[in-house]
Amino acid sequence: MNVSIGSKTRPYRTVSFNDRLNEVELIEQRLLPHEFKTVKTRNYRATARAITDMVVRGAGAIGATAAYGFAQGLAAFRGRDLGKFEVHVETVFQVLAHARPTAVDPLNALKQIRKQLPRGATVVEQKAKAIELARAFAEEDVQHCAGIGVVGVGLIRSGCRVLTHCNAGWLAFVDIGSVTAPIYAAHRAGIKFHVFCSETRPRSQGSTLTAWELAQEGVSHEVIADNAAGHLMQRGEVDLVIVGSDRTLGRTGEVANKIGTYTRAVLAHRHKIPFYVAIPLSTIDWDLENGSEIPIEERHENEVLGAWGVDPRGKRTFVRVGNPTSHARNPGFDVTPPELITGILTPQGIFKPTELWKNRRRLGFDERES
Amino acid sequence: MNVSIGSKTRPYRTVSFNDRLNEVELIEQRLLPHEFKTVKTRNYRATARAITDMVVRGAGAIGATAAYGFAQGLAAFRGRDLGKFEVHVETVFQVLAHARPTAVDPLNALKQIRKQLPRGATVVEQKAKAIELARAFAEEDVQHCAGIGVVGVGLIRSGCRVLTHCNAGWLAFVDIGSVTAPIYAAHRAGIKFHVFCSETRPRSQGSTLTAWELAQEGVSHEVIADNAAGHLMQRGEVDLVIVGSDRTLGRTGEVANKIGTYTRAVLAHRHKIPFYVAIPLSTIDWDLENGSEIPIEERHENEVLGAWGVDPRGKRTFVRVGNPTSHARNPGFDVTPPELITGILTPQGIFKPTELWKNRRRLGFDERES
Repeated sequence: MNVSIGSKTRPYRTVSFNDRLNEVELIEQRLLPHEFKTVKTRNYRATARAITDMVVRGAGAIGATAAYGFAQGLAAFRGRDLGKFEVHVETVFQVLAHARPTAVDPLNALKQIRKQLPRGATVVEQKAKAIELARAFAEEDVQHCAGIGVVGVGLIRSGCRVLTHCNAGWLAFVDIGSVTAPIYAAHRAGIKFHVFCSETRPRSQGSTLTAWELAQEGVSHEVIADNAAGHLMQRGEVDLVIVGSDRTLGRTGEVANKIGTYTRAVLAHRHKIPFYVAIPLSTIDWDLENGSEIPIEERHENEVLGAWGVDPRGKRTFVRVGNPTSHARNPGFDVTPPELITGILTPQGIFKPTELWKNRRRLGFDERES
Repeated sequence: MNVSIGSKTRPYRTVSFNDRLNEVELIEQRLLPHEFKTVKTRNYRATARAITDMVVRGAGAIGATAAYGFAQGLAAFRGRDLGKFEVHVETVFQVLAHARPTAVDPLNALKQIRKQLPRGATVVEQKAKAIELARAFAEEDVQHCAGIGVVGVGLIRSGCRVLTHCNAGWLAFVDIGSVTAPIYAAHRAGIKFHVFCSETRPRSQGSTLTAWELAQEGVSHEVIADNAAGHLMQRGEVDLVIVGSDRTLGRTGEVANKIGTYTRAVLAHRHKIPFYVAIPLSTIDWDLENGSEIPIEERHENEVLGAWGVDPRGKRTFVRVGNPTSHARNPGFDVTPPELITGILTPQGIFKPTELWKNRRRLGFDERES
């Protein structure tokens, strides 16, 4: 997407790869929305560290970063000894696979690329293939998002007021984003509509990242406190809800996503407001048979008890908000049952959540892998 | 309630009056939970300013502060001229009545006291009566809260997990609090239970004030992000919800309270969790016939786009969290319909929200005033 800084506008991707310099280029997301800057990692260990340190975050984005990091790591191998090369491949794989242990996307990306490497070929050929496969992986992420845009654009009519939660925008993917794909498509088609970005405490990705993205594109939007969604729905000020998904159960249609998603689904259901979940195919989990099996990460209490922002002198600062002698619970995700979901937006079309399974082949389910 | 600072413990009220020095003493709530301190106002204009500047906040607390400020203002009158005294009374009344224009409690307190002043009596007698009436007003607030405790304590069983929202604790009243009255009563009775304090963005009164209060009393509690309430209910971790009310419609049973209350009511209803509203009688509005007539204050967007807290050096600081080029909507309250409310906790007992009107005489409704 285009980013404007001062009078300059230039297209960026969240993650890109320069094979001549063997560098991965990433948007430094920890500084957003207060500062826009990119960083270049010069070797696969630095790329893994960028994932660990959340320079880059978001399912699609860290998958592609791991893919590029893998190609980068392989390219740095010196020599032609296939035995030593295989040991090196395994090291690179393990380092990147463990960059964020609970995330599945880097692991899936790495497995997918390693599986397709021509094992008998020369080191040079395998290095070249890894780069080609990493690019294809990143490109598929972009195409999935573009596909969601084509499928979902019709939901956003003129005058529509759309509620989103968290950030499933282009910063969470390689480009375009899942939730934002129909939004950007409608905006480019000249449709006038308005987006409410839920703040998304405790990490505030709605008021920081999604609001930044929409402001960059000139999409009409306002931030609201998470508490205000119900009130706006009650007063008839929300026509459509679109959220992302960290994991969608292909067998049941349950959706695990950022904490607070379930609350919005319950509210939308009460007010008969359509509630859609936008997903690239990679977030479908075809194995789990019950949403209660999804592990819910409990994150550090400081996220709830304080906030990161910029102080009056422009310095990035953490402030403690809550009572210093109190503790907090901090579940990071919740699970929304299929009966609260109007439809799942995928690059292959819109599906009822309970109809994912019978459409599994169209949705990329590989029978041999299950 | 008792406040412990270091090794010292001492009882405090949110608002008190020293008639010998003609001073109103207030807890400086803007510094909580990071610092506990009281301030003394030496004249009624300073007392009005303390209300305006939110040194003191909360319906019951600002009502009592206005009542004491009225007595303080009258006491400062020099001379015995009844005509001049009446002009002075009117000035004091107007200054205090306009300290927070949208709040009804100060106005009701002032009207109630002025109505009962013995008009024919001497200046000295009227001054003395004003002090007596202000004390009685504050005492009634305490007795109402104590009454809610007696009525509500039975709801909190051993092992119970209670969810609250915002702060309707003793800091919002003269003492004890409305929502906290059953909580403190159960705690003193030795019942073991746990309280979840919703953070209550954008002003975070749950994680600041309610958490501070519960920590002071040693009540087991944790702060949660507003987004986490639905998840905890879904996982069966909430047994009871108690919230306060800024305005309760006596004719319909609708409850206007801090933004996010309605969302908790919808979630509790879905999960069949009892949802109670604790109110002193002063918050009942016997006039309005429809909740949609309740004006919903839109507050400054900076509350949503940032947060107040204490930086790593211990300095109280506002940080901008959200995207600097985005704006926010900030409705301060929402309205919960009676069908989502299990019961209204009052000093006179627990009532179905739709049965307030037929019990109006018991609940202090004065036919002559309507």
